[in-house]
Parts: sequence; structure tokens; C-alpha cells
Amino acid sequence: MKTVNLGFLGCGNIGGGVWHLLNEMHDEILARDGLDLRVKKALVLSIPLARTDVPAEILTESAEDVLTDPDIAIVCEFMGGSHPAADFMRRALENGKTVVTANKMALALNWHSLQAAADKSGAGLYYEASVGGVIPIIRALTVSLEADRIDQVMGIVNGTTNYILTRMAREGSDYAEVLADAQKLGLAEPNPEADVEGMDAAYKLSIMSSIAFHTRVTVDCVYREGITGVTAEDIACGREMGYTLKLLAIGKRRGDTIEARVHPTFLPADHPLSRVDGSLNAIFVHGAYCQDMMLQGRGAGDKPTASAICGDIVCAALNERPQRASLRYTEQPDPALTLTDDWTCRFFIRVSAKDAPGVLAAVASRFGQEGISIATMLQKGAGVSGRARLIFITHEASEHAMRRALAALDPDIAAVESVIRVEGE
Amino acid sequence: MKTVNLGFLGCGNIGGGVWHLLNEMHDEILARDGLDLRVKKALVLSIPLARTDVPAEILTESAEDVLTDPDIAIVCEFMGGSHPAADFMRRALENGKTVVTANKMALALNWHSLQAAADKSGAGLYYEASVGGVIPIIRALTVSLEADRIDQVMGIVNGTTNYILTRMAREGSDYAEVLADAQKLGLAEPNPEADVEGMDAAYKLSIMSSIAFHTRVTVDCVYREGITGVTAEDIACGREMGYTLKLLAIGKRRGDTIEARVHPTFLPADHPLSRVDGSLNAIFVHGAYCQDMMLQGRGAGDKPTASAICGDIVCAALNERPQRASLRYTEQPDPALTLTDDWTCRFFIRVSAKDAPGVLAAVASRFGQEGISIATMLQKGAGVSGRARLIFITHEASEHAMRRALAALDPDIAAVESVIRVEGE
Repeated sequence: MKTVNLGFLGCGNIGGGVWHLLNEMHDEILARDGLDLRVKKALVLSIPLARTDVPAEILTESAEDVLTDPDIAIVCEFMGGSHPAADFMRRALENGKTVVTANKMALALNWHSLQAAADKSGAGLYYEASVGGVIPIIRALTVSLEADRIDQVMGIVNGTTNYILTRMAREGSDYAEVLADAQKLGLAEPNPEADVEGMDAAYKLSIMSSIAFHTRVTVDCVYREGITGVTAEDIACGREMGYTLKLLAIGKRRGDTIEARVHPTFLPADHPLSRVDGSLNAIFVHGAYCQDMMLQGRGAGDKPTASAICGDIVCAALNERPQRASLRYTEQPDPALTLTDDWTCRFFIRVSAKDAPGVLAAVASRFGQEGISIATMLQKGAGVSGRARLIFITHEASEHAMRRALAALDPDIAAVESVIRVEGE
Repeated sequence: MKTVNLGFLGCGNIGGGVWHLLNEMHDEILARDGLDLRVKKALVLSIPLARTDVPAEILTESAEDVLTDPDIAIVCEFMGGSHPAADFMRRALENGKTVVTANKMALALNWHSLQAAADKSGAGLYYEASVGGVIPIIRALTVSLEADRIDQVMGIVNGTTNYILTRMAREGSDYAEVLADAQKLGLAEPNPEADVEGMDAAYKLSIMSSIAFHTRVTVDCVYREGITGVTAEDIACGREMGYTLKLLAIGKRRGDTIEARVHPTFLPADHPLSRVDGSLNAIFVHGAYCQDMMLQGRGAGDKPTASAICGDIVCAALNERPQRASLRYTEQPDPALTLTDDWTCRFFIRVSAKDAPGVLAAVASRFGQEGISIATMLQKGAGVSGRARLIFITHEASEHAMRRALAALDPDIAAVESVIRVEGE
């Protein structure tokens, strides 16, 4: 039997979930793994105001009690946000304490210094729960697929936006309406920006594409477009053409070029990701040898997150050499790989066009000048405005060429209303 | 840099795939992990008859060359079947060599002695590819979910039967016809028994439920029913009622009771496993904390299997202490857990009934006497036989009670034609 003392940084919803799991599973983990896991100290902002089931005697308002206690071997960070979480984690690592975190923002923004601190002291840095909650994507990529060459990771990694898009699709409702309802139900934050603008997904994509492609894909390299501009009409038009709308985090490697982007995406209705509804997360992986894989599960919630975090804790506690068991990735960008913002994909383009002869030809000709060919076209009759809706799905085209083609359209003839990328075919 | 010599036992389709991966990825694995992986010897039945790209100079007809060479650290077993594969693996482990295998049959039937040999010598035993091919189910259960309490593993783990059932459903064809075609296409073995009778799935279920429930579930404890009795009519009736037919390997823990069974199963059409078609595999996991998870991917094929095997090889080669990194499970059955063959589930029952008043009441009354209540009933008009088809879907009922109720039906009044269990609601 080996007693391992843990220190918590933060003790809210997730910290409480971990504490409950460790209590409920204490004897089973002891029997299975010979580990007696104990929470020695838990940092909270204010002991009198702490709303937690964790016993008062282990609560502390001083981070030092967690970061410098020589009895504490593993520090679990549940504070969220980048500061002071990253500083605390760095100090814990410098002090030789292994760190377990689910904090994608702090990790994505401070990975280099955190990993450097871990490498220097020989401590471990574990973050399975930082991407996709309970989905074991980090371990799948770093361990199971370590010998493979991954060329695609594509995921629904934000439950809030997936919930909103699922309800918009089912009810035909508009974004603002569903968001307000999700906020009322506690399924979206009062300030939803990090979710709906795709920032949360971008942090996660930065982490998983860095690992998948063995190079550093920083958050500022991720192209990002949220769901605030998505309309019920786009969703309905897409469905009519056989597509489902999802906010996807997409990392692709084509030869020596890497692309990383978060944006609303149409997928064929029969693509496995199209069927991942509500607050579920799922990540689709393609590699040279593994071919297609998909992992799905709960991306958030105290229990699923606690399951993933405690898997890391057991792993950390079992390994005498944490730096060996710690998840590996290349810290420096690989000089042989370049990041691009000019990917190719198919596009869904909706324009409001003058209802007159020759308009379709004019649009198609602009596309043609940029080498973009149209795969499908749908025309919706003229409304009160006297203008028709034209919807195009293109063949594979360059992002830059598409931007040029759209910029060159005369808005009086054809005003661009929506541009949505299409993947998964 | 660390040079690690590998020995192959067998060098057919899978061995060749592993050899190709190790060649193609050699420099990347060296750069990523500091490992120089080399295949030193590969056992084949006959060097002159060997059909492999592996260079002739490393081929050998003597198992001793692999099992006793002190330079070989990791033995990769690709022979299939239980004998002599299990004996060879045991000897390799006794000689302190770590073993990597995808051989579910040899592992399921000889796990105790293999693990004992590994524990004794301190060698590692790795078998990620033995269940679900490239799906990282073993690592998910043993590492990621180690701190959780898993109560369900339910999977499509045999690609051949899933391919056959998918085609039967799409084409309305009968079993024998689709099987013959699958054999022609090389998607079913000339002797398909191990697949279609559910043996292959039973080996895999034995492995994954042993791990999930931390107790030994031997193959002879697995209830097994194959797909040879499945008819196009059952599939069509099920579909009409909203169900999809799959051959599932199901392990459940309810309190202190464990059930393990392989049989054709109706799932609601919107269940994630219902949409896993063709030769794909997928495994659904439920736990107290992780809640619902599903992992899907290629269950067979040289490339996906090679990806999973080489993930194990890298893992084995990196770990100075293989027994610690090796996958853990409890070898002895947990005395606090009992295996049952009297589970509860819903049932789909098709009977050919006399087309006369009172027949439905007679059947329902037999069910009622055993405490089984009917959820849905469908009647198909009398055919040339003058008998009607009655299809019942029951509420949750005990397996034993259902067997008693069916045995008590008078075949002249109502002859039982199909009994298919229903899961996933």
C-alpha cells in the first residue's frame, strides 16, 4: 500500500466531484492499485463562503499550503482560467509535484513553461480531462496511436454550442432564443462568449492538434468563427441538402502543412459526428494506419470530468517515473511543418440575389474565375424583397480563392448572407 | 536512443502489416520516442513457402530463435489460435520477454498462466489489439477509467457478423445468401463458425468484461448465441417496430452480479450502436462516473491492427518497468461477485399462431403467469398456412421466466419462431 497525498487548487463543482469520487472509490482503488489516495489540502477563495462538501479542516485560503507541503505529491488544479492557475501549476511542478488539470485555457496558453517546469523537476503533467471531458482522446493520441501518423482530428468539443445547435435544428428556432433558454437552464454561462465564439473549442483544438501532429499549434494559429451568426434558415437549407450543422474543431495535416480551425461546419447527415447531439462531445480521428476512429462521451459535468481526472491521478500515483508516463509531445514547432490559413474544403454559400436573368451566370462565373466549381445549387423563390435566395455547395476549393470570389461579387446583384464550410465527405 | 529488438511469432497478414508500419514509421518513432525498433527474427512455418515482404534473412522456422534470443526484448505474436501460440507466449514471458498479442482466443483461454508467467519474470503482457482492433478499449478501461466503477460494456466486436447483418438489413436478403457472398468477397472465412456462432465475440467479451468488472469472466461463463438463426423477416419486423439488429457482446454488472452474453440483439434505431454498420466495430461503456461513452473504429484489417499493436510495442519499449505499465486486472474471480445466467432484459418474441379467437389471450396469459408484461404487439395477417404472425415486445423480464413461459406455450396454438433480446433503452 502506498499513501499518496493530494492537494486541490480550487474546490467548486469539479473539485467537489473529484472529492466525492475519491471518497466513494477509495477502498476499490486501494484494492485494485494498492493506492491510498488522500486529499490533504484544498485551496478555496474564502473558507467561510466555501460551498463544498469537503471537510472544513482541509480547506485553506493559502495556496502555499498546497504548493509547498512536502507531503503533497500530486496537485489537482480546478480553478479554471489562466491566472493564477498557470502560475500555481508551474510552482507546483517546480517543487516536484505532479500536476493534474482539466484547464484547457491555462494549458493551451502556458504549455511551454508548464512542460518545461515538469521536465526540469521530473514531475508529471497530466491533462486528459482538458479535451472532451471523459473521452480518452489525449491517451488515445499519445499512447495508443503513438506509432501511427495522424492526419485528421475533428471534433465536437464544446457541449454548450452543440446543445444550442441541436435545439435550433430540432425546433427551427433562432440562435438568440435558444441561447436565452440554455442560460435559463444553466446549460450556457451568463457570459457565453468563450463557448459561442469558439474560444473554448480553440484551446482544446490547440492541445489536441499539437499532440496529434507532434508540433506546437498555438491558440493564435487557430482560425476561429463562432456560432453567433448561424441562422435557423441556414440550418434548414443545409438539412434540405442532406447536411447537419455542427461547430467543429478541425485539425488536418496534408503533407507538411497543418491547418487548425474552429467554425460552424456542415457534415453529411450520415456522418457519425452528425448524430452526436445535445451536450455530448465526440472526436473523429483519421490516421494512416488506424483509419477512421471516433470516440464520444460526456464533455463536461462534475462526474464525467471527475472520472477522467481520477484516471490521471491513479496513473500519476502509480508511476514512480512520472516524466516517462507523462504525456509526450514536441514542445517546439517542427520546422518541417508549416501552418496554413489557406486550406481547401467544400463551401455552402447562401446569397440574396436580384431576381433577374443572368444573375446565376454572373455568380457562377465569379466562382469559375477563381477555379471554384459548383456541385449543387438550390434556388428559393423571391420573397417580399423581390430577391431570390441562391444556395451553392461547391466542390473542394481553396479558402483564399473563395474569399476573393465572394469579395468580387457585386452585392447589388448577389449579396453574400452565409458562408459555411462543408467537411466529412 | 534505445535499440529494441523484436521477434515475430508468425508473419502473415497482421505480421506483415506490423512490419510495414515499423519500417515506414521507423524514423518518426525514433525522433518522437528515442526508440530504434528492429525486427530481428520472424517465425514462419516454412521459409520457402512464406509469402511475406519481410526479408528472407530474418525469417526462421525455429521458434527457439525468437524465444531464447537474449537480444530480443519484445515478442509479437501473430499466429492466431490457442496452440501453440499460448505455449510460445508463455515461454517468452518466462524468459523475461515482453509479449504483445492480438490473439483474443489464446489470451482468453490462457490468461491466468500467461499473466502469472509475466508477473513472475517481470515481463509485460500487452493485448490492446485483442478486442475491437484499433479501438483503444483496453487502455480506456484499465487506465482512463481505472478510478471509475463500470457497470456496462456492450459492443459490436465482430466485423464479419456486423457486415452480414448490415447487408441482410439493407437488402432484405437471407443469412445463407449474404454469408456466401461475404465468403466470395473474402469478408467471411471459408469456415465461418468462429464468427457466426459468436465464439470470436465471446473471447473478446471474456477479456473486456474481466477488465471492466475487475474479476475473471472466463469464456465458458459467457452465454453465446450466433446469427445463423437470424431471418430477414425478423430484421424487417424489428425495423417496423423501430429496432435494428446487431450481434452484441454484452457485459453488465448489477450490484454484485455479473452477466456476460453474446447474442443477436435489437437496439432502438437511434441508439449509437445501431448506426455502426458494415465491418466497423464499436464499444459502448457505461460507468458510475463516466456515464455513457462509445468508441468506434476498425475492428480488423492489417493496417488498423498494426496501429494498435505498434502502440503497444512503443509502450512496452518505453517502459523500464513493464509489469507496472502492463495492463492490470484481477486474475482470480472476486468472491464478492457472482456470475448469473438469469439476467433481465426486454424480449422480441415472434410466434406463428392459430388464427382463432382467444389465441392472443392464451399467449398473454402464459406470459402473465411468469410475471412478464407485454409492451407492444404487432399482428401480421394469416398466410397460406392459415396461421397469423404475432410479434411481442415485452417489458423487462427475467431470462429464466421467459424460457419457462415459452416452454409452456402449446405449439399447436402458438409456435415460437424467434426470441431476440432487446437492449439499449
